[in-house]
This record gives sequence, C-alpha cells and structure tokens, in this order.
Amino acid sequence: MHVLILGGDGFCGWPAALHLSDLGHDVTVLDNLSRRAIDLELEVESLTPIRPIGERLRVWRQVSGREIRFVRLDLAREAERLTALLPALRPDAIVHFAEQRAAPYSMRSTTSKRYTIDNNVRATHNLLSALVQSGTDAALVHLGTMGVYGYGWSGSAPIPEGYLTVKVPTPDGDVEREILHPASPGSVYHLTKTLDQLMFAFYAANDQVRITDLHQGIVWGTQTPQTARDERLVNRFDYDGDYGTVLNRFLMQAAIGHPLTVHGSGGQTRAFIHVRDMVRCIEIALQNPPAAGDKPKVFNQVTESHRVRDLAKLVGSLTGASVAHLPNPRREADENELNVRNDQFLALGLEPTTLSEGLLEECRETAGRYRHRVDPTKIIARSVWRAGMETAEDILTELPERTPSPAGPMPERR
Amino acid sequence: MHVLILGGDGFCGWPAALHLSDLGHDVTVLDNLSRRAIDLELEVESLTPIRPIGERLRVWRQVSGREIRFVRLDLAREAERLTALLPALRPDAIVHFAEQRAAPYSMRSTTSKRYTIDNNVRATHNLLSALVQSGTDAALVHLGTMGVYGYGWSGSAPIPEGYLTVKVPTPDGDVEREILHPASPGSVYHLTKTLDQLMFAFYAANDQVRITDLHQGIVWGTQTPQTARDERLVNRFDYDGDYGTVLNRFLMQAAIGHPLTVHGSGGQTRAFIHVRDMVRCIEIALQNPPAAGDKPKVFNQVTESHRVRDLAKLVGSLTGASVAHLPNPRREADENELNVRNDQFLALGLEPTTLSEGLLEECRETAGRYRHRVDPTKIIARSVWRAGMETAEDILTELPERTPSPAGPMPERR
Repeated sequence: MHVLILGGDGFCGWPAALHLSDLGHDVTVLDNLSRRAIDLELEVESLTPIRPIGERLRVWRQVSGREIRFVRLDLAREAERLTALLPALRPDAIVHFAEQRAAPYSMRSTTSKRYTIDNNVRATHNLLSALVQSGTDAALVHLGTMGVYGYGWSGSAPIPEGYLTVKVPTPDGDVEREILHPASPGSVYHLTKTLDQLMFAFYAANDQVRITDLHQGIVWGTQTPQTARDERLVNRFDYDGDYGTVLNRFLMQAAIGHPLTVHGSGGQTRAFIHVRDMVRCIEIALQNPPAAGDKPKVFNQVTESHRVRDLAKLVGSLTGASVAHLPNPRREADENELNVRNDQFLALGLEPTTLSEGLLEECRETAGRYRHRVDPTKIIARSVWRAGMETAEDILTELPERTPSPAGPMPERR
Repeated sequence: MHVLILGGDGFCGWPAALHLSDLGHDVTVLDNLSRRAIDLELEVESLTPIRPIGERLRVWRQVSGREIRFVRLDLAREAERLTALLPALRPDAIVHFAEQRAAPYSMRSTTSKRYTIDNNVRATHNLLSALVQSGTDAALVHLGTMGVYGYGWSGSAPIPEGYLTVKVPTPDGDVEREILHPASPGSVYHLTKTLDQLMFAFYAANDQVRITDLHQGIVWGTQTPQTARDERLVNRFDYDGDYGTVLNRFLMQAAIGHPLTVHGSGGQTRAFIHVRDMVRCIEIALQNPPAAGDKPKVFNQVTESHRVRDLAKLVGSLTGASVAHLPNPRREADENELNVRNDQFLALGLEPTTLSEGLLEECRETAGRYRHRVDPTKIIARSVWRAGMETAEDILTELPERTPSPAGPMPERR
C-alpha cells in the first residue's frame, strides 16, 4: 500500500510512519513541521534530541533499506497544492495526524485557541474536499481523541465506540436511533475533534469517503522498535506543561528529582495507550477500512484506564519521587470514573501493552539519559482554562544534582 | 441597548438592523460586504436594486432621524481588530449573521466549500474568543438553520427546539439524558451551523458566554415596514439558483413568465418564516437571553411548514404560472414530513405572518417591478451535491415580453 502520513514528523506520526515502512508499505510523509515551530514559540525542546526530518529519513534508509518520501506542506493553508498532489501521489490510504494536539496549548491564549480551530478544522476539511475533488479513493484514518466523549456522560454504561443507540420518545412510543455519542469536549483542542466528527459524517454520507476515526487515549512511552534502532531516529518526548502528557511527565519528573505534579485531587481517571500499541492500531485500522457509503468507523484506541493519583503513587513507589498537589488549570470534574469499550481492536488482534514496571523503567531511563536537556522552568502547567485561574510557582528553577532517591533509583543502563 | 449586527448588510441583517434601530436601539453594523462580492463572482445581482451601505445608512438617517454606525470588518480574517473593537464599542448584545448562507453556493465548487467552512467557522470562533478575551459580557444571538436537524430523524415526534431528552441504556437500566438534537446537515453550509453549535456549547460551558441560537426556516418576502420606507432602503431579493430561496424564486418566476422550478417530485417539506417575523424574532431573542452559565438557548425560528410542490401549486393557481419538474441537484430525500416545534417564540409574543394571498402578491409585485433586472440564465440551479449529477438546461435565455397570464395576472400597482 502507498500510505500518506499527514503530520508524519510528530509524536505519533513519526513512529507510525516507521512502523508502516517497516511492514513494507510505501510511505510518504507530509508535514509542515509545525510542532517544531511551536517548540520555538514555547522555548522548550523535546527531552529526546530529535533530528531534522531529512536526517531522520536518511538514517531510516541506512538502517532499514527503505525509502520514505517527504513533502513539506501546510494542510491548512495549502489546500490547492494538496488537491494537485493527490493524483500525483495516488495513495491507497491516508493517515491524518496533522492537527494541533495539546489541550493546554489550545487554551493558552486567544491566539492559540484561534490557531487550533483554524488549523485543525481547515486541515481536515481541506483534506476531505481534496479527496472529493481529485477523485482519490483512499481510505482515510484520522486520529481523534477520547476527549470527544467527555467523562461521566453515560453513567454506569461503558463509553461505546463512537455510536450509541438511544430511545427517542415519540407520540407512538419510543423509537430507537443510533447516534454519534454526544460531544462533550473539555478544551478547544478536544472541540476541534468533535468538529472533525461532523465533517467526517457529512463527507462519508455525501461523497462516500471511507473514514476511520480513532478516539485515542493518552499516549505514554516514547520508543517503538523502529525508533529505537538508531539514536537519530528517536521519537519526541514532551515534558513541558503544555505538550507533556501525564505519565511521561511523571517519569521525567522522577528521573530529574522533581516532585510529581498532580493537579487537583488527582481523581481524574484517563484512558492510556503505549506508543507501541498506537502504531499497531494504525496498522489494524488501515487493514480494516469501512466500505464506500458506510458511516465513519470509530475505534476507541485505548488499552487501559488509570486514575492520575494512582499513577503518581505507582511512579513514586518505583522511584521514591514525592507528589506535589498543584491547582488544576483545567475546568474539569475533580473525580471521575471511566469505563471504555475497546472490543474492536482486541477482536482484530491488538495485544495490549499494559502498564508494567519494565516499560515504566524503560521510559524513565530514556528520560534519565537526557535529563541534562530539561529546563525545569517549563514543567509547571500554566495554560489556564479561564483567565484568573490559579497556577503554581516553579518548584525547581535549576536542574538538581543527580542524587540517589530514598527508594533506590533504577540504574541507568546506558 | 447598543446592538452590533454582524453581517448587517445582508438579506436578514439589513432588515434586522433597521428594525432594531426603529425600536430605538443604538445599532452598529459590522460587515465585510462579502455578499455583494459574491454577486460579482456569480455575475448576478439582487432583483431589487440595493444601494451601497453608505447610502442606505444616510437614507435611514434622513427618513428615521436615527443613526446606524458602520464598520467594515472581515470577522473571519480580522480577528485581532475585532478583539480590539469590542471594548471600544461596548455592546450590550450582538447579532451574528456574518456567515455564508446558501447551501447551493456551499456545494458549488471545492473553493466555495472551503470558503464556507473557513469563513463561517472562523467568524464564529473569532467572535467567541474575542468576547472572552475582551471580557465583553454581551448577549450573543446567532442565526442558525433548521437544516441542522435534517429531515425525518425523529419519526412522528416534532423536531424539538435544540435539545431532546433520550433514554440511554446502562447496566442499571435506562437513564435519561438531555442531548443536543443529533446533527444531520444536508450541505457544507448546514454543516457549518452544526459546527457552530458545538463551539457555542463549549464557550457557554467554559466561559459563560450567553448565547441564543436561532434555527431558522426558509425566509420569504423581502420588505419590512422599515425597508419599505424608501426605495433606497430596499432589501435584497435573490432569485438565482444559488442564493434564491424557493418561495421567492417561484414568485419571481411567476412575475417574469418563467415556469416554476420544482426539483425532483417537490415532495420536500420545509419550514418557512416571513422576513417581517424574522426581524421580530431577533427582537424577542435579544429581550430573552439565557443567564450566564446556561447552555445555549435554542429557538426554532419558523412559523409554518409547506411541501414544495404545494407552494408551486399555490403560486401557479394565483398567477397562472406552469410548473417545470427539474432534476434535483441536491442529495436529499424525495419526500419528507416535517413537524417543528416553535412554542418558545409563540409564548414570547410572536404573531406569525403566515402565507397569505396578500403577502404573496406583495412579493410578486416587488419581483414584477424589477423584472427588467432579471437575467434568466441565472435561474436554473446548477450547483450539484456530487460531481456528475444532472442539471437542467436554461428554460429561458431571454426575458420574455410582458404577457397577461391565462389565470389573469395580479396588477402591478406602481
């Protein structure tokens, strides 16, 4: 298959591109390198020293013998170039990661709210309309988010995969209707993925575009077998308050001797997936597209759920790190249950990589190896959901000396 | 009240601005004159000779003694100017008409699809984020569309006003949940209004923006008491295949001796509202905003429903016009029932102006007065929902001589 990876230089896109290339697919990455540009804006870098995309691709060719092509393209702003490219590239499938993907960044400022809406909505719609105009019959796989569902909407019922059947009262008694799970986005970022859903439903119905929407949990881990083949292939590891995701942040914090930053009570329950499973899910989704005329297929791309304070406790017990309870910059419930269905991926062969000491250690080790690259003033989350909400002061302003933790640190094996 | 009318130069915005000014409100119109620019693109003009906005406002001052201010502003592209303007203007309320509003135009080409998405989504989001950033506590009234609901979703139950309560199955039995009526947009234009709904829900919840969304039916008629005060205040009358709405098109067609263009069987049932009631609804909505923290208030802004072929028959019987059954350029059900609730506006004092011979005659008369301005080659609808769909040839290529119709024409009284 010829697969286009839109956003193939990013945290999920890069390992997905390598995984698909490694499987023998012909891969082309399209990316505007916006994630690197946001690093410049936020004055922070990936904890891991990621290499320029050209070097990444050269090294991949050296270690794998496989070619990945690269096109620098801004999906939101270069719609006509995209429409012209599709007939030339003739893809069999397209994976669409090309959206601003951090909830805190999306709430950081009016500018970042607008950027997130403008970029994400236009990227998705430019793609859909380009597929239609160019007559490209490629299966489209899109990275959505569990955050479209909100938390706690469906009571004791597990969150279904995209759709649910409800009873609608009518004068002739209740009628059953299948609906897209009602949207309950918690940030402007999550909002964009709910807007995407409606655009997908329309283009699937009107133009028979074949679309799969993957509602992904929080990705943790950083390396896949492919990114680990050479240090120059290393994946991003974001630890800052905007782009860092909770479990990776805890592991980084443990590695540098920073208390684990829990917002509010830590009673938030979230769904997780390891980066290795993420790439496998993309593969499975590509192999199982919907038929033309079908409504968008929705998978919940998650393997397990955990409460944030339990994760902090676990990482603390493994590493001796302390926990700091900080004000929550988000507007969200302090405590929530979460019960998510993920039957479809399991039925299609996904073998979940669940939280294990080994993997936590591997990830903490990666963090430890690059600890000198941490700017501790970038750790505290400061993007607030409404003006005036309290945030914490920096806990550390300088990188602490490397000291053994009371619980006995895991050795750094490299 | 100081009311901003965004899109106040358009078909609904202009009569709404005059109506509110006439009631004694302080009115400022913001508009980028995009509707006039689209006329240039489509090579067609309003049947009525609308005057430049500056002249409109000068004449209004002469005939009413009231001042309406005008700011030329592109809501989608001049977000920062908008944010800066709000604290200077200090509005009490804002009416948001500033979106591309024709379903056929939104399906006309890839460019027009993208324009509709980009313009409408950004206009709404730039406004919401500007209200938040500037701390402007103005009630926001937005013009939505009945088309967000689709047709026939709820079986024999009438379409509710925005929200409905459904039963969701859980392991502990059904639980009741109020949901936004599931979106079922029939075009890219209607899609944008479903995207607006989700943005409204988010900003109402996160930022306590007070929002009213008006799901409007098809507007017919052209004049209000205010626009009729001077010919230079005349409202738009669109008759072309993209912007003309069904009943006004029939009346124009009857006035020039063109067969009434019914698409498909004409079994489509649609909701209607006269332009006079539209302005009154805007007034009522402004008087009854939701409280801060409330979810968006949704009104169905309609007064009656009719089947398209019944309207053609009615206009035909009044005027002697024949009916031409043409291929339908839209993807939609050939026949549908429609039962819509509009209790809220009725309870708040709306007295519906329903279809009457007198009003039809008034509108046909307006069309007849300006019949020399019709370009008959612009009448046939040619924007198709999918490439390759059939459209009709022009029925007339030149304006026919004025001939009495067999049923005896209504006299033109001017």
